Amino acid sequence: MSNPAPSLGTGVIPPLVTPCGPDGRVDRDGLAAVVERVIGGGVHGLFVLGTTGEGPALSMEQKKSVVTTATEAAAGRLPVLVGVTDASFDGVRELSIHAAEAGAAATVLAPPPYSPTAGPELIHYLDAVADASPLPVFLYDIPSRTGAVPPEAVRHAMTLDRFVGFKDSSGRMVTLHEVIRERDANRPGFKVLVGPEELLGEAVLFGADGGVAGGANLFPALFVALYEAAAAGDLAGVRRLHGVVMEISATLYRVGQHGSSFIKSVKGALAELGVCGGGLAMPYEGFKPEDRPKVRKLLERAQTAVDASLGAVAS
Amino acid sequence: MSNPAPSLGTGVIPPLVTPCGPDGRVDRDGLAAVVERVIGGGVHGLFVLGTTGEGPALSMEQKKSVVTTATEAAAGRLPVLVGVTDASFDGVRELSIHAAEAGAAATVLAPPPYSPTAGPELIHYLDAVADASPLPVFLYDIPSRTGAVPPEAVRHAMTLDRFVGFKDSSGRMVTLHEVIRERDANRPGFKVLVGPEELLGEAVLFGADGGVAGGANLFPALFVALYEAAAAGDLAGVRRLHGVVMEISATLYRVGQHGSSFIKSVKGALAELGVCGGGLAMPYEGFKPEDRPKVRKLLERAQTAVDASLGAVAS
Amino acid sequence: MSNPAPSLGTGVIPPLVTPCGPDGRVDRDGLAAVVERVIGGGVHGLFVLGTTGEGPALSMEQKKSVVTTATEAAAGRLPVLVGVTDASFDGVRELSIHAAEAGAAATVLAPPPYSPTAGPELIHYLDAVADASPLPVFLYDIPSRTGAVPPEAVRHAMTLDRFVGFKDSSGRMVTLHEVIRERDANRPGFKVLVGPEELLGEAVLFGADGGVAGGANLFPALFVALYEAAAAGDLAGVRRLHGVVMEISATLYRVGQHGSSFIKSVKGALAELGVCGGGLAMPYEGFKPEDRPKVRKLLERAQTAVDASLGAVAS
Amino acid sequence: MSNPAPSLGTGVIPPLVTPCGPDGRVDRDGLAAVVERVIGGGVHGLFVLGTTGEGPALSMEQKKSVVTTATEAAAGRLPVLVGVTDASFDGVRELSIHAAEAGAAATVLAPPPYSPTAGPELIHYLDAVADASPLPVFLYDIPSRTGAVPPEAVRHAMTLDRFVGFKDSSGRMVTLHEVIRERDANRPGFKVLVGPEELLGEAVLFGADGGVAGGANLFPALFVALYEAAAAGDLAGVRRLHGVVMEISATLYRVGQHGSSFIKSVKGALAELGVCGGGLAMPYEGFKPEDRPKVRKLLERAQTAVDASLGAVAS
Repeated sequence: MSNPAPSLGTGVIPPLVTPCGPDGRVDRDGLAAVVERVIGGGVHGLFVLGTTGEGPALSMEQKKSVVTTATEAAAGRLPVLVGVTDASFDGVRELSIHAAEAGAAATVLAPPPYSPTAGPELIHYLDAVADASPLPVFLYDIPSRTGAVPPEAVRHAMTLDRFVGFKDSSGRMVTLHEVIRERDANRPGFKVLVGPEELLGEAVLFGADGGVAGGANLFPALFVALYEAAAAGDLAGVRRLHGVVMEISATLYRVGQHGSSFIKSVKGALAELGVCGGGLAMPYEGFKPEDRPKVRKLLERAQTAVDASLGAVAS
Repeated sequence: MSNPAPSLGTGVIPPLVTPCGPDGRVDRDGLAAVVERVIGGGVHGLFVLGTTGEGPALSMEQKKSVVTTATEAAAGRLPVLVGVTDASFDGVRELSIHAAEAGAAATVLAPPPYSPTAGPELIHYLDAVADASPLPVFLYDIPSRTGAVPPEAVRHAMTLDRFVGFKDSSGRMVTLHEVIRERDANRPGFKVLVGPEELLGEAVLFGADGGVAGGANLFPALFVALYEAAAAGDLAGVRRLHGVVMEISATLYRVGQHGSSFIKSVKGALAELGVCGGGLAMPYEGFKPEDRPKVRKLLERAQTAVDASLGAVAS
Repeated sequence: MSNPAPSLGTGVIPPLVTPCGPDGRVDRDGLAAVVERVIGGGVHGLFVLGTTGEGPALSMEQKKSVVTTATEAAAGRLPVLVGVTDASFDGVRELSIHAAEAGAAATVLAPPPYSPTAGPELIHYLDAVADASPLPVFLYDIPSRTGAVPPEAVRHAMTLDRFVGFKDSSGRMVTLHEVIRERDANRPGFKVLVGPEELLGEAVLFGADGGVAGGANLFPALFVALYEAAAAGDLAGVRRLHGVVMEISATLYRVGQHGSSFIKSVKGALAELGVCGGGLAMPYEGFKPEDRPKVRKLLERAQTAVDASLGAVAS
Repeated sequence: MSNPAPSLGTGVIPPLVTPCGPDGRVDRDGLAAVVERVIGGGVHGLFVLGTTGEGPALSMEQKKSVVTTATEAAAGRLPVLVGVTDASFDGVRELSIHAAEAGAAATVLAPPPYSPTAGPELIHYLDAVADASPLPVFLYDIPSRTGAVPPEAVRHAMTLDRFVGFKDSSGRMVTLHEVIRERDANRPGFKVLVGPEELLGEAVLFGADGGVAGGANLFPALFVALYEAAAAGDLAGVRRLHGVVMEISATLYRVGQHGSSFIKSVKGALAELGVCGGGLAMPYEGFKPEDRPKVRKLLERAQTAVDASLGAVAS
């Protein structure tokens, strides 16, 4: 269990799920419980309202409630990052200001959904965000959800003081290596975070600063141990822990199907653990009752594997 | 000039641009001027907050202002349709209720941006929209901006009373023909509208009920004449007017580049005509001063061609 | 029944299926029977080794056999077009020379499979093809199979004497209209053909010269009637016949699934009619015995609808 | 310098370029020189007629000449793999037989270009290839060129004795990890090779058996050292050598543009070194004379970096 004075954009920063009640309201107690769970596991930061947090699917009021709840629950123990991606620039600005006032440390921004932005248009947009943002910003590439961030836009972000890092959820490791190379040459200190948890080990081994592992909602200590092994160059440790991550990825996350599969599994497992409810915001929905035994069984298996791997680390 | 008692989802329904001031606020006078312009040209309905109206790029407050302004300006002369596509279901509901209260006739809804929805997920979503919507809904397919609407989702919408039509901006005429065939077999009265103005003529000739032609912001009478020729089976008229549409498409709409090209041209041309300002909402921006002479010249050429073609119709 | 002295690239030019024996050899008698069938239906040209003809899946020896068989069977009664698309330029050249020697009228060429060609690379390629080709060439856009043909490449082809037409199987009617507009302005006589048979009617109504309708293997007279109605501006005829085309498209062509669905249905139906075998070249395979009753039933229904519509035309 | 008795599908297996004369014929002396160059650098196998070898762009005669030349030049010193991907199944079979007769060790096969194969169709195809192939086969995923290989097809290949490995050029490391996990669970001995050279280090660190690094045509010893460092778990060595690989990737490979950029750079650099000519097969072309100074300068820089890194390894 680590996290003494973690620095912004370093280590394991779980994209927190957003528990919601049956009426669709944010379950503030549930969210606080998730915060405690991951801090207890030693994570280095919190990321709310990301893709795993169903951020874009929430209303502005729900979003603000999530930010307030998470920053209060974190209580300064570690930096809170806030996903502000929005089709509307006013929405980006409004939530960024709220995040600053609530004491968040930074925002995370992907290109605007719905409006395709080729290179020059995206650069114009990033300039405007840099001018308007009261907080440091991480640029976010998640081409499965919004337009892709082309290399020239990442390079441009590195020239803007307000942009302090890049979160790559494209799954393309070649791109990540290119960004790390540019960072080392032109802007040391610019943070590079990897999205898919299956790539956390290698990304950190090769110079990334950390990762936004969705599975850390469930097994925070596993991902912290993986990150620390990678940061320490402990190859045997990385391999062993990465193996557990892959096992979970190939089993527990596959109960559902389609676009909602991953979020559904993480929330469904948290529900089995009694941490929070398993419902999802529209357009998705949580598991049906008949799927729950399968989730429970795969969760137990995953927990056993995680415990074994962490016991091995500890000993 | 037509539009006596147009029925919902029939004829030319321009996707109105949203004029904004330099401060980003909706220019209500400008929008009212656009409304008068298109009603003067004989259109059969108004569609606000679509893609051309930069709907998803506006804040909820701006969106409501647009709806209020347009319904007031329309003053019951023709039906107003409101684009309610939103990554957040609460956003869809909130704007739908506002639209109903303001006196709009229907809403228009694409799959939620950001959250990919495979068939079963989209059908679950459409059911929820049908339950929550106070107004009739048109399903909207615009795969360049959100996930595509698969055939089974269109078929499902036809089984829901709350869904009264389909707007196809995919540009794939084979799909449009398939939907028309299903409509004729299973739900006569379900309206089929085509997006790209370059396809208005043939779509109506083959059974579509009308179109959402962005160019009708500029040249409403041209598109009304084209629609009426097609609805009347006047092939010679359709060909002549379609030729003018293609000419404008290949010249005036190509001054800009990238994703914003079309909206930029329409707004830039309206600005040259003194109807409203030419600025665009983030992430886009209007033409630079040095591009304006080119816009003016192509606009004049287009106007000449339109006048000639309408003169021919009239005579 | 028409086809007196049809001109190159005009009218209905069916993409002939390639019947093969169980040993994979070209069934020359079967192919000759298909040729007679479509000529009997009044078509205006033949297109062998297209996508429907499984051209790229055949060996060079098989391809040559198809060309020889078809040109012999056609015996000068109408022009034969030969698909020469090949990942290898030598393959393009070799088959083009064979086609010229066999008496074919023209070739049809898509961008090279496997090697992605951006605009400048494709233009370099088209120049080389123009230099090497002994026959006139039709440029072919089928983005579902090879890289797309961008607008600048079509425009470039119009400047090359050796290129005499464009076959658009993209399904994007906006593109087709743009090409027709460019053709009218810059190269009258350049032929424009549409791929999907569901678009034949409107394409010809709006200026295309004809179409490459796969369904004409089965129902040549239906497509000839549709083409002639469109060429004559007979809107009522076009609508009635187009309705039959859509009916077949939505029923008979949907027995199979996946990439092979259309070819499988056309060949399977020809096998039911006793014209040729229903086997497909690798990577595909024909219908399994248990699917055949369904094919037969839908084929009979289609035949009834076709007969009724043609009887209506004739009377 | 290593390569004593390398086993099939292990280590660095360069995808050899195919030198061609100005007349388009295979430059057999040039190819033999490339073979000597890479064997001199210690590589563990040879792969001819891959994407870098422009395999699909060559005629069957050229392909056979390449196979014969390479196997003769290799003279049994290491295994030769032959790319047999072809839109035609007969082409796959014919080249596979030639490869076996020439003494090659295995073939490498991607899904057929041009003909899209969904899962069940691809599985049918793999079964047929397994039956027909006289040599062991590596399944090849390169979604930028042919249809993607879905997970179920990789799993199916693992059940077929004739398939002995998987080459992943998708660039998606999550997929590679999944395949490695399945391999470890179900078919130990099934080889996993990574395509992009920028991913060689991490792939081998995490369980891949080797890689098909195109840059090894130029700098074989660099990639051999990187592979050996990774296979030995020498993290410091991997990082240092990977840094050089990224430097070359970001400079030398970017002289050209578009689809041909990488192959053009590798061949252009080999031409500067006097190993073989720099021409490319259609649809591509080699560098223009005015680009050559830039290639030379970046090549010299790359060579200096490589020498420094290898000196560091040696000392």
